[in-house]
Amino acid sequence: MDFAYDAKTEELRGRLLSFMDEFVYPAEAVLEKQLEEATDEWARTPIVADLQAEARKAGLWNLFLPDAEHGAGLTNLQYAPLAEITGRSPHLAPEALNCAAPDTGNMEVLAMFGTEEQKKQWLRPLLDGEIRSAFCMTEPDVASSDATNIATRIERDGDSYVINGTKWWSSGAMNPNCAIFIVMGKTNPEAERHQQQAMILVPRDTPGVEVKRGMHVFGYTDGPHGGHAEVVFTDVRVPVDNLVAGEGEGFAIAQARLGPGRIHHCMRLIGMAERALELMCRRANERVAFGKPIAAQGVVQEWIAESRVRIEQARLLVLKTAWLMDTVGNKGAHTEIQAIKIGVPLMAEWVLDKAIQAHGAGGVSQDFPLANLWASARTLRLADGPDEVHRMSLAKRELKKYR
Amino acid sequence: MDFAYDAKTEELRGRLLSFMDEFVYPAEAVLEKQLEEATDEWARTPIVADLQAEARKAGLWNLFLPDAEHGAGLTNLQYAPLAEITGRSPHLAPEALNCAAPDTGNMEVLAMFGTEEQKKQWLRPLLDGEIRSAFCMTEPDVASSDATNIATRIERDGDSYVINGTKWWSSGAMNPNCAIFIVMGKTNPEAERHQQQAMILVPRDTPGVEVKRGMHVFGYTDGPHGGHAEVVFTDVRVPVDNLVAGEGEGFAIAQARLGPGRIHHCMRLIGMAERALELMCRRANERVAFGKPIAAQGVVQEWIAESRVRIEQARLLVLKTAWLMDTVGNKGAHTEIQAIKIGVPLMAEWVLDKAIQAHGAGGVSQDFPLANLWASARTLRLADGPDEVHRMSLAKRELKKYR
Amino acid sequence: MDFAYDAKTEELRGRLLSFMDEFVYPAEAVLEKQLEEATDEWARTPIVADLQAEARKAGLWNLFLPDAEHGAGLTNLQYAPLAEITGRSPHLAPEALNCAAPDTGNMEVLAMFGTEEQKKQWLRPLLDGEIRSAFCMTEPDVASSDATNIATRIERDGDSYVINGTKWWSSGAMNPNCAIFIVMGKTNPEAERHQQQAMILVPRDTPGVEVKRGMHVFGYTDGPHGGHAEVVFTDVRVPVDNLVAGEGEGFAIAQARLGPGRIHHCMRLIGMAERALELMCRRANERVAFGKPIAAQGVVQEWIAESRVRIEQARLLVLKTAWLMDTVGNKGAHTEIQAIKIGVPLMAEWVLDKAIQAHGAGGVSQDFPLANLWASARTLRLADGPDEVHRMSLAKRELKKYR
Amino acid sequence: MDFAYDAKTEELRGRLLSFMDEFVYPAEAVLEKQLEEATDEWARTPIVADLQAEARKAGLWNLFLPDAEHGAGLTNLQYAPLAEITGRSPHLAPEALNCAAPDTGNMEVLAMFGTEEQKKQWLRPLLDGEIRSAFCMTEPDVASSDATNIATRIERDGDSYVINGTKWWSSGAMNPNCAIFIVMGKTNPEAERHQQQAMILVPRDTPGVEVKRGMHVFGYTDGPHGGHAEVVFTDVRVPVDNLVAGEGEGFAIAQARLGPGRIHHCMRLIGMAERALELMCRRANERVAFGKPIAAQGVVQEWIAESRVRIEQARLLVLKTAWLMDTVGNKGAHTEIQAIKIGVPLMAEWVLDKAIQAHGAGGVSQDFPLANLWASARTLRLADGPDEVHRMSLAKRELKKYR
Repeated sequence: MDFAYDAKTEELRGRLLSFMDEFVYPAEAVLEKQLEEATDEWARTPIVADLQAEARKAGLWNLFLPDAEHGAGLTNLQYAPLAEITGRSPHLAPEALNCAAPDTGNMEVLAMFGTEEQKKQWLRPLLDGEIRSAFCMTEPDVASSDATNIATRIERDGDSYVINGTKWWSSGAMNPNCAIFIVMGKTNPEAERHQQQAMILVPRDTPGVEVKRGMHVFGYTDGPHGGHAEVVFTDVRVPVDNLVAGEGEGFAIAQARLGPGRIHHCMRLIGMAERALELMCRRANERVAFGKPIAAQGVVQEWIAESRVRIEQARLLVLKTAWLMDTVGNKGAHTEIQAIKIGVPLMAEWVLDKAIQAHGAGGVSQDFPLANLWASARTLRLADGPDEVHRMSLAKRELKKYR
Repeated sequence: MDFAYDAKTEELRGRLLSFMDEFVYPAEAVLEKQLEEATDEWARTPIVADLQAEARKAGLWNLFLPDAEHGAGLTNLQYAPLAEITGRSPHLAPEALNCAAPDTGNMEVLAMFGTEEQKKQWLRPLLDGEIRSAFCMTEPDVASSDATNIATRIERDGDSYVINGTKWWSSGAMNPNCAIFIVMGKTNPEAERHQQQAMILVPRDTPGVEVKRGMHVFGYTDGPHGGHAEVVFTDVRVPVDNLVAGEGEGFAIAQARLGPGRIHHCMRLIGMAERALELMCRRANERVAFGKPIAAQGVVQEWIAESRVRIEQARLLVLKTAWLMDTVGNKGAHTEIQAIKIGVPLMAEWVLDKAIQAHGAGGVSQDFPLANLWASARTLRLADGPDEVHRMSLAKRELKKYR
Repeated sequence: MDFAYDAKTEELRGRLLSFMDEFVYPAEAVLEKQLEEATDEWARTPIVADLQAEARKAGLWNLFLPDAEHGAGLTNLQYAPLAEITGRSPHLAPEALNCAAPDTGNMEVLAMFGTEEQKKQWLRPLLDGEIRSAFCMTEPDVASSDATNIATRIERDGDSYVINGTKWWSSGAMNPNCAIFIVMGKTNPEAERHQQQAMILVPRDTPGVEVKRGMHVFGYTDGPHGGHAEVVFTDVRVPVDNLVAGEGEGFAIAQARLGPGRIHHCMRLIGMAERALELMCRRANERVAFGKPIAAQGVVQEWIAESRVRIEQARLLVLKTAWLMDTVGNKGAHTEIQAIKIGVPLMAEWVLDKAIQAHGAGGVSQDFPLANLWASARTLRLADGPDEVHRMSLAKRELKKYR
Repeated sequence: MDFAYDAKTEELRGRLLSFMDEFVYPAEAVLEKQLEEATDEWARTPIVADLQAEARKAGLWNLFLPDAEHGAGLTNLQYAPLAEITGRSPHLAPEALNCAAPDTGNMEVLAMFGTEEQKKQWLRPLLDGEIRSAFCMTEPDVASSDATNIATRIERDGDSYVINGTKWWSSGAMNPNCAIFIVMGKTNPEAERHQQQAMILVPRDTPGVEVKRGMHVFGYTDGPHGGHAEVVFTDVRVPVDNLVAGEGEGFAIAQARLGPGRIHHCMRLIGMAERALELMCRRANERVAFGKPIAAQGVVQEWIAESRVRIEQARLLVLKTAWLMDTVGNKGAHTEIQAIKIGVPLMAEWVLDKAIQAHGAGGVSQDFPLANLWASARTLRLADGPDEVHRMSLAKRELKKYR
């Protein structure tokens, strides 16, 4: 047992921390300004392209992808502390490094399950940051945490598949540069519970695809990240070659995609919580009320100490989960992946709430990043399945041990 | 001791409940539509004027004002259950009845402390719903919960007062129809701690007044309510007659204004929590996951029961506080006003969080009112002084009993 | 709506508060001493008899019994604030006034459902404080919150009933002076769900009754209150006249008994919480750490403020519940009785936990009453049905409103 | 970074797990029986001696002592998972292995700071389990978390030191076999804040030592562990050679002792929480209410999942802390030691509370170990300094980073 990062991780951490100081943090104010002046609320701001150029130069590109052929070839355990650092500036750093959801998960799907042709057409430009992508899974009319509920149909018709259904929370899809959608639907509705689904590639400009509107998250549109779209598919016809892997394999692909997706979110949440704690400390040191800095108030001290205790515990569980994924595989790390999915967003939400409170009314406003971060953390208690579903599932495995 | 509403209250409750069913709830969808089509994001939507006309017809107008000459002459205890009902649709009902903050508090100040001339010029059109008003107290650079921190200066110069300072969170001030600002500042910075401040009337169109920008609340601008403005006052000159009461009386006026203001917020929060509980129950009955309605899930049942228990307790404390204000005065009800200021927003936030969770990802979006209501409730843990300041103050009085 | 106690209540409160000051609080140290010297750990201490004599003189006797023929004839609303006061010294005051569980509930059962003969033989000496009684309902082998689980059998055999079964948590039954047991069992196991049970009177000295052992509550035996016994009934034979009301009426009697029983517990819990808050304040004022009284620590102030807020809310809900029981009956107050059963023990537990923490290690010990009170409050989250059962039941009624 | 235990740890874990199954768990019922029949409530029960004999045979003896000369020579990281396992049966296993507080800490003090003579006289018999010891630090009249408050005096008088003062919570001291007390007091009250104290060895039979009474913990006396004594020292005279290290070094010794002491407590708490979770799962699988096992109730599933999530996080932080102590020393691990002192008792308390609730009324009684374990966990929020003091101290270091 050893709690020190390995040499490669330490080297990359050092490089990334410098990159954050030199490029990312100074870019935050630029982003705000460009957003105010933007004509298309859904497009990426120019600053992101600038940062991407610097990141490539610095050798900080596609770090998320364990596949050494296409990505950086890092283990989950090596990537985790890097993703954490990007979480400190989550509206800029992940995209700067081409490590932002949902593109990361989509690239992993293509790298693992894509044909050579699919890789050439879609994976390559994604790896190069030329296009963006969306993942269309959740549906408005059913509880999507239960995959058997999915109502979208993918029906074979000659050399085509025909897709009908409505998806929402397709993150990034409002972005005009988002060129390709990976859509989950049922090809075999009569098959066994987890053999009914498939995934298929749908170019954005296919007839019958309607990107209808952006969903809000507590008043935020998340515009610069391409928002969260409701997308309607009406008799959308694509060639059979667009299928990812085979019919009935959609659930397995989703599982393969969701494990890393969930841990990436959790890694970044640790960084968000660290940022919040730093801001809370700075504010507490500077702000004076009733004759002394609020850092001298016992209640604020409690928040700070409790934040530190919670962050440390959460980080370790994320790191152990990454290690398990590396050593025994995603399936063997199932309990831990669920555990961090349950615990880490709640932790980050708690720390952010306290940091907001320490900032007074400014904390809920656009003058600090806290309220926006809070909304992201809160939403992750629902994204990829609500906490309650994960708790139920984890508990059942625990109960089985003693039956 | 008697827990039944009196006859007058019951009659008004009946009338208001019908008004909600007939006019307000159906108007919610209209509001959404008008907001999408609005050209000025800060202006009131036409539907509000329609509702106001109906409310006047129904005799549901200015219910908040205990002063029978200008308002409905209700006690706080009679008004509380009515304000609660308006809280069920807080973006429409309070304004429909001309009972929305900050106009209510401003009208109370004018009714209590205004000269005949001030009443004629500003109170009359406010009572008639012809103009709106703002209350400029909080400042960005200081912890405003400590009134001695206020930096805005109101300096006598001949027959004028000259005002310099920056305010923010001046709710309603982004609305072009918001004609009059009540501004708090220091006239006597060398006087005793609570004798330094004054309040002064500043018409919006006075030279030197700059309504600079709207503050966001978790991504929401609260546009249709006139937003929350940052307002800069630079050498703003108004006649000495614009002073409300005298120099040094600003703190006392603020206290007189804040007591009712806080309880009105709390009354409406009860209604917001009731609305959330209703929506949570409806959703739980309708939504199916893993083969049964989520109403059958033990965890959701816990949320519902706990919500009911918390709402009932909070309502009773609000009602008792209203009764105390009526019988022993705002000063005698000081502890209870602080107690509801501490307890009720937290209660409403908790119920809303659970209702959101029961709605899945939809809960954080614009498709349900819950996320927006949540943001309001959360913000009330900061508005009019953060919880921590009220807890500290309440505790000190409690500790004194045993010294 | 009126939040003032009526004149009779105020008069009795005054009298009881004097009684507490003059007799009860000074007796607490005497109790401790007599307990140390006691030879029978299950017997009442002599100080209780002394207090009872004083209480009768002061006209503070059997206040709990609404029946004016046998008791004080107070409404629930009048009794509630008195029971609260006794809760401030719960190991002495309730017994001093002959208002201690389980005798109170048993007397109510006898007063409401007993025959003249049963009243003469058992109610009279209970009213006079000459004997004590136990209520034998809960069973070790089944979840007793579901009454249909009860396994004890009461079988007719000629002019007798024969009882077989095992009960536990029969409070008071370890006391040698506890002369009569009211036992719940099934007479009609094949009848409809709530028509299967009956209650029967079993004198302690009936052959086949074995009072086996006292159950502990977190290390406490509650000896001076007669403990909490496990009682085994083996072929216990009593005359048919010992049945309370008729066969199959046990569930209805239990319901009639539990409503007032639950509210009495809650009333006393309010008093316990008030006592804890008082002790916390006194300690905080007196104890110095790191150069200032802990009363000046922000965290302790938070505990105190939050305690006051929670106590006030809980008290009002208890009072409203009492009022509902008086005006619409126990059945009409069903939701509120469950609500206080859920909310009040948790509130008291929370306040007591903080008071303990403020007392340092002394707080968990015998040197302060706090740990013992905490154990009582904690246990009331389980007694008369665990919180979870009440929440489930309350939620189902709430959900029904919107189906 | 590597989350696997090393080979030595795995081997010892295997051996210890077998020992638990073969000897410790079966001994729990024996302990209960021997306690009931015991004539001296403060003496060790015979079963402990039996287990100790087996443990020595199994090579599971003095594992806690990193000093390879006297102990097992394990690192903290190697010992941590073993201490966790003993925490599953905390009333038997730690003593069985001669790894029970306060002897462990006292042996460490003697091994690190003792003279050869002191080691021969006291360390040797402690290592052999022949005698027991107590640590006399906390005082009833002052907040002992602030070491400068300590009032006990150790005054030089010729070749002797004379000790006057009152201590309490001297765990183990009620045990007649507890032969030696390490007493903390002030030798240099005028010196710098942390140079005032010293530690001195006081044999129990020294004239002037009065072991006055045992403190209770939520009604428990912890008799078989020698209780928690109040000890009065009146003109107690011991030779100058009894001083441990020098005058003024008491604070430094205390610090050296408390770090390992705190982490040992935390390690065992993890095991206690695991035991509670196991019992909760077993109960949930077995107990039926309302027609199904309570394992099928969503609320119970939430408790189980949440317990697993909290335990995993806490364990990792304890392990990392152990690793830090091994690699950078106790001082470098200061923040983490405080973090586990804050977080782990609260975690264990929470899990135990839920396990109790799942057991119904039985959960608070002597029929399950849960209530007793809960009392231990709760008390550790106060022992070695209340949580609030540690939070304040940790927060101040955190705040300093950003000043």
